[in-house]
Amino acid sequence: MPILTLLTDFGTRDAYVAAVKGTVLRLAPSAHLVDLCHDVPPGDIDTAAYLLAYAAPTFPPETVHLAVVDPGVGSARRLLALSTSFGTVLAPDNGLLSPLLDRGEARHIERRELYLSTPGQTFHGRDRLAPVGAFLLNGGSMVSLGPVVSDAVRLPLPAPKRGTELLTGRIVHIDHYGNVITDIPSAWIEGDAIVAMVGGREVRRRAHHYAELAKGEIAVLAGSAGTIEIAANAESAARLLSAERGDRVEIRLTTKPSAH
Amino acid sequence: MPILTLLTDFGTRDAYVAAVKGTVLRLAPSAHLVDLCHDVPPGDIDTAAYLLAYAAPTFPPETVHLAVVDPGVGSARRLLALSTSFGTVLAPDNGLLSPLLDRGEARHIERRELYLSTPGQTFHGRDRLAPVGAFLLNGGSMVSLGPVVSDAVRLPLPAPKRGTELLTGRIVHIDHYGNVITDIPSAWIEGDAIVAMVGGREVRRRAHHYAELAKGEIAVLAGSAGTIEIAANAESAARLLSAERGDRVEIRLTTKPSAH
Amino acid sequence: MPILTLLTDFGTRDAYVAAVKGTVLRLAPSAHLVDLCHDVPPGDIDTAAYLLAYAAPTFPPETVHLAVVDPGVGSARRLLALSTSFGTVLAPDNGLLSPLLDRGEARHIERRELYLSTPGQTFHGRDRLAPVGAFLLNGGSMVSLGPVVSDAVRLPLPAPKRGTELLTGRIVHIDHYGNVITDIPSAWIEGDAIVAMVGGREVRRRAHHYAELAKGEIAVLAGSAGTIEIAANAESAARLLSAERGDRVEIRLTTKPSAH
Repeated sequence: MPILTLLTDFGTRDAYVAAVKGTVLRLAPSAHLVDLCHDVPPGDIDTAAYLLAYAAPTFPPETVHLAVVDPGVGSARRLLALSTSFGTVLAPDNGLLSPLLDRGEARHIERRELYLSTPGQTFHGRDRLAPVGAFLLNGGSMVSLGPVVSDAVRLPLPAPKRGTELLTGRIVHIDHYGNVITDIPSAWIEGDAIVAMVGGREVRRRAHHYAELAKGEIAVLAGSAGTIEIAANAESAARLLSAERGDRVEIRLTTKPSAH
Repeated sequence: MPILTLLTDFGTRDAYVAAVKGTVLRLAPSAHLVDLCHDVPPGDIDTAAYLLAYAAPTFPPETVHLAVVDPGVGSARRLLALSTSFGTVLAPDNGLLSPLLDRGEARHIERRELYLSTPGQTFHGRDRLAPVGAFLLNGGSMVSLGPVVSDAVRLPLPAPKRGTELLTGRIVHIDHYGNVITDIPSAWIEGDAIVAMVGGREVRRRAHHYAELAKGEIAVLAGSAGTIEIAANAESAARLLSAERGDRVEIRLTTKPSAH
Repeated sequence: MPILTLLTDFGTRDAYVAAVKGTVLRLAPSAHLVDLCHDVPPGDIDTAAYLLAYAAPTFPPETVHLAVVDPGVGSARRLLALSTSFGTVLAPDNGLLSPLLDRGEARHIERRELYLSTPGQTFHGRDRLAPVGAFLLNGGSMVSLGPVVSDAVRLPLPAPKRGTELLTGRIVHIDHYGNVITDIPSAWIEGDAIVAMVGGREVRRRAHHYAELAKGEIAVLAGSAGTIEIAANAESAARLLSAERGDRVEIRLTTKPSAH
């Protein structure tokens, strides 16, 4: 049973998600559909790229992932197919694939005969990506979709920096619980005492899980994405810290002899 | 693998959707379930009818669609089954099927022995429509459900009007992005210059897609439902226009010689 | 096709639900995934327990239910597997299973070799419960998971009381429509005239369904969970009554000779 996931900014109040699903099922009736997320803020490619890179790698290799956050729909922007070890990701060439580009090979989808002649130029998720996804689910060849491209759009994603005493990175996501997710690998602080600086506030507490924290206490812990997370227990660390996505995060390793 | 879709006003905070799904799967374990939408405002039959007519026709012919926006649940209102080229739609007889009635044959469901004796008279989605849906998924005969009816409840859906110079219609939906969806077929304005009047404001700009619009600019474009859509780029045209569902929309064709 | 349901407080803005689903599908590719609910308020074990007990029993016997409202994730709290007639329920030992404990046998999951070595200690839904669920979906033995336990955590769930003239209970849920769900069995008031007291207000009206009520009218009816529901027609009874979960509900049976 081939799996197709769907990541969009369509929200859940309309029937746009269902129209993509119906189209996929009409063309590939045995598809198993899985929602990746539909509550990406409209046009927020950064959030979509983060969520895609978080969840897509958990899926099996035969999966087809449709990622449709596409404010340029109908314009000259390309549609891409990226083959990876966790399946093929179909998305507009607007940066959405950025964190995954180095994990696979991207092709420019040029098989226009696969597209549907459905009304309008505003819904390529339904009219172009869905039939291309169905084509792949039905055993169609990824290679036949079009030529390899090496110039896919990349979001400016500054890499975290690892100094001997100072680690710097940024907040890449604030989740539903208010946990502050950074891009600094948790492995960089293993065994070290630290001081984290977020939004002008110091966090010295290390924790392994949320429940060990007292009310109002904020701690640094190893998050589920493999990066450092700053969290509280049953409240929003982001609110307590007035932290926002994109904010700079500094971590000072204090166990090095030179630290004081 | 038989497909069953589900359109409700149950929201996503309760377990009502899951109870319908569990019941379908208990009776038809190989059913493939697809959410059409669950965020219809409570009791809003107009929105449900619009969303159903938008998405259901994308599905394959063997699909069973359950549409459960049913403020009259437990009263004498009938339950209907409508057979169409995109599957069988099961719904209360309250107008929800209106836009689809001319695309199929409706029957009054009278097979009361299919119903479950589950508690209460408030959840016919679980207790009546789910088992009827499972019956169809298991190969049960649509014809056996009950007699054909020709007097199904119809919402007052005024048709758009096509004059030589003036097209009139109304706003049938405002989507998640704030796009204003009308009932005027896009084909009626092909090649014409136009002036659209919405909420006392003129829109002269034509566009093919959103990204060609400058900030604050509003345009008329061919929407994904085959009808005219009035939209902005990365903001809500509905808010910019103070437009609401039901509002009248006028479009004047200005290229006709007699237009000036 | 084995079914796995998922109940969480993850919300729908992140990709946490998708990461659990991807993990299950990677390990058990033919799993059929069904959302039970993801909008449980963060950490609200009472609501999760209510929703689980409402919907899980509608599913077929081979179902695996993952219930992940787990504020103690990473701490010493146990993970449990409860075998019931409607499938196996996997959940942290924090009270979430309380209403179901008497309907099955609970085991302490001790098969740590099934767990994934994925980053962090904050996401046992993905790293522990998902692979245990996949193990069961793939035919793994429930009995092999670990020893039977008889001391699972139980929420304080006071039972409703049935006197000859007076029934007392409490509000266990307020649903999306504002319907007030109590724990008093509907069967206790069959055929009786009653006066219900909720939040200092008397409700004497009995109804079978919502549509028979006039605007503003509040009535007692037999709800879909087998318990008494207090509802209005197309408005929120909870708001009209200022009722909240946990509030006491009294019902006086007025037809008994001794009632006056």
